[in-house]
Amino acid sequence: MSKIPPGLLPEGLRDRLPPEAEAAARLLRSIMDSVASYGYERVSPPLAEFEEGLVGQLKSDGAQDLLRIIDPVSRRTLALRPDITAQVGRIAATRMAGRTRPLRLAYGGEVLKLRATQLRPERQLLQAGAELVGSDSVAAASEILSMAVDALEAAGVTDITIDLTLPDLVPTLAAGPFPLDPGLVDSVRAELDEKDAGAIAALGADAYLPLVHAAGPLDMAMERMRAIDAGGALQSRLDGIAGIADALQGRATITLDPTERHGFEYQSWLGFSLFGADMAGELGRGGSYTICHADGAEEVAMGFSLYLDPLIDAGLGWKEKKRLFVPLGTESDLADRLRSEGWRTVAALTDADTADGLDCTHQLINGEPEPL
Amino acid sequence: MSKIPPGLLPEGLRDRLPPEAEAAARLLRSIMDSVASYGYERVSPPLAEFEEGLVGQLKSDGAQDLLRIIDPVSRRTLALRPDITAQVGRIAATRMAGRTRPLRLAYGGEVLKLRATQLRPERQLLQAGAELVGSDSVAAASEILSMAVDALEAAGVTDITIDLTLPDLVPTLAAGPFPLDPGLVDSVRAELDEKDAGAIAALGADAYLPLVHAAGPLDMAMERMRAIDAGGALQSRLDGIAGIADALQGRATITLDPTERHGFEYQSWLGFSLFGADMAGELGRGGSYTICHADGAEEVAMGFSLYLDPLIDAGLGWKEKKRLFVPLGTESDLADRLRSEGWRTVAALTDADTADGLDCTHQLINGEPEPL
Repeated sequence: MSKIPPGLLPEGLRDRLPPEAEAAARLLRSIMDSVASYGYERVSPPLAEFEEGLVGQLKSDGAQDLLRIIDPVSRRTLALRPDITAQVGRIAATRMAGRTRPLRLAYGGEVLKLRATQLRPERQLLQAGAELVGSDSVAAASEILSMAVDALEAAGVTDITIDLTLPDLVPTLAAGPFPLDPGLVDSVRAELDEKDAGAIAALGADAYLPLVHAAGPLDMAMERMRAIDAGGALQSRLDGIAGIADALQGRATITLDPTERHGFEYQSWLGFSLFGADMAGELGRGGSYTICHADGAEEVAMGFSLYLDPLIDAGLGWKEKKRLFVPLGTESDLADRLRSEGWRTVAALTDADTADGLDCTHQLINGEPEPL
Repeated sequence: MSKIPPGLLPEGLRDRLPPEAEAAARLLRSIMDSVASYGYERVSPPLAEFEEGLVGQLKSDGAQDLLRIIDPVSRRTLALRPDITAQVGRIAATRMAGRTRPLRLAYGGEVLKLRATQLRPERQLLQAGAELVGSDSVAAASEILSMAVDALEAAGVTDITIDLTLPDLVPTLAAGPFPLDPGLVDSVRAELDEKDAGAIAALGADAYLPLVHAAGPLDMAMERMRAIDAGGALQSRLDGIAGIADALQGRATITLDPTERHGFEYQSWLGFSLFGADMAGELGRGGSYTICHADGAEEVAMGFSLYLDPLIDAGLGWKEKKRLFVPLGTESDLADRLRSEGWRTVAALTDADTADGLDCTHQLINGEPEPL
């Protein structure tokens, strides 16, 4: 193979330079602080685990998504985590299985994907989020979504939109009021994704036709869904959605696409995606799901996770730097005091160092900072 | 191979649980804030790079230390970084080569080692530090060591000790005042490490004998070193050490072992290790070194890095949690206000949730927080 040019990085891996690296750290900090204020305690799982264990935790694409590590020490194949949520589920089900529920956990760190997506060219992404283990009630969903909105607002996102979906609606209806041959469930879901009314009718699934037209702004979608007579399963979900909307008190625009399932393969009754003004693509997602314990027991949970990369790209988390030039011979006590007052001091090491060359915004005049 | 029990992690990789994960984040935050106050700008290189590139950057053990990743996308072998310093050097020499010097860069993040050491059972470690690129003067060393002391103090370390060494002293003396056959330099260094005066004499390197007894507290070591008549190279180094000690103004205990070289294989005139009261092992290290640019040019630099794991193990960064129980039915405005005042609220989701079960320290009495 040809020699790699100096400084070249593998596809999808990159350096964050100033001021972007600091913006990333500041955003992570504000999101973690926001989540901590709701009593969520931070956990920090390792960057890599046994491939076998990690695949077991991931409920969707799983194995194909993993970057594998050869580990001569364990003589096993390890894999880098493509997601932290599943690791938090593992912790809740093992080392923290004995803790009182609901268990509130938060996390923030790097994940590594095997492949970039069209939307995100990076394979290393910064993920942060919170998981509420032991409840998937409307109260749980309201707390998780309020926190997600708080965290996005703390990060500087405005005009937040939440797209809600009911991931298990079709299988639930198929097992109840709108019976479907189990072999047809996936086909009906696929045609609902396509909003293809003709194909749904051709499948003999006419009862599902009203769902095609129910996606949209919350009020409209709710009205259309309420008109569908499908008994308790649907009504309780709609009541849940109404309760969540109430709890959010107009802090976000809410839409409902009841049958959207892309990326919600492992969610149960509720899934959601988060968007912001002038930001390309989804900022985060979450919903209700099930954690499996080693003894086979299942436990409900609810959570959200954010990817910080789109926020950083949008210029959030950046703060004007006030850099104060400290000339050669300045008393170190003065520089100490200025730092303790919040200044970033930049000291000259030789006579050749200048305030301008060192990218300073302020200089010392008679021992006091003045703008340059 | 046998099945891996649920929750088992590979050797040397572990979960940080509450409150340790938060302590780690708090320590990293305080160290990065401290370094930023000196005008060091954060960079964040990726967790993995091309193996070939990463080995080129590492000046010591290098390749044997790496955990390798199979990357089907680049069709190259990648490696996980065992250290961030070398990556920062790469950034300084490539993407930030055009920036005015001195260039002040800071970093903090996870590194992954192939093997644990006797002192540290972890293979994933949290590293933070700062690099000053373009100078290795006494002023540069003084700034780097003052920052290291500040950062350790900010993290809560007391009674800091700095062990100084002069890594290139023997080769410098051998090329000048105390000529040595180039084939003997390594042997003399090895015997100096062993403090074996007899072996040094047997090598015919009598001029080096006084160095055996020069290690110790700074004043004593300096006095003994000053008595060695070895011309400018030694004197300028001793003057440098004296200047650094002056700049630190008694903020740390300083020792000097002029020929200690273990772990300083790539340092030039100055190396140092950092220690704290009641903390096992070294907390960090650093010194002066050389960065190689793509065009063959060399550039001097000076830096330090800390490992946060011993600080976390010592219980630093932990903060008493005040968790306020918020009963069912509490107005969300009240909870919002309490969070904005700095409280961590823990909301009841059902009547079964209790302040005690949710590990709260405070409850609401007439809308005001009271200790439980």
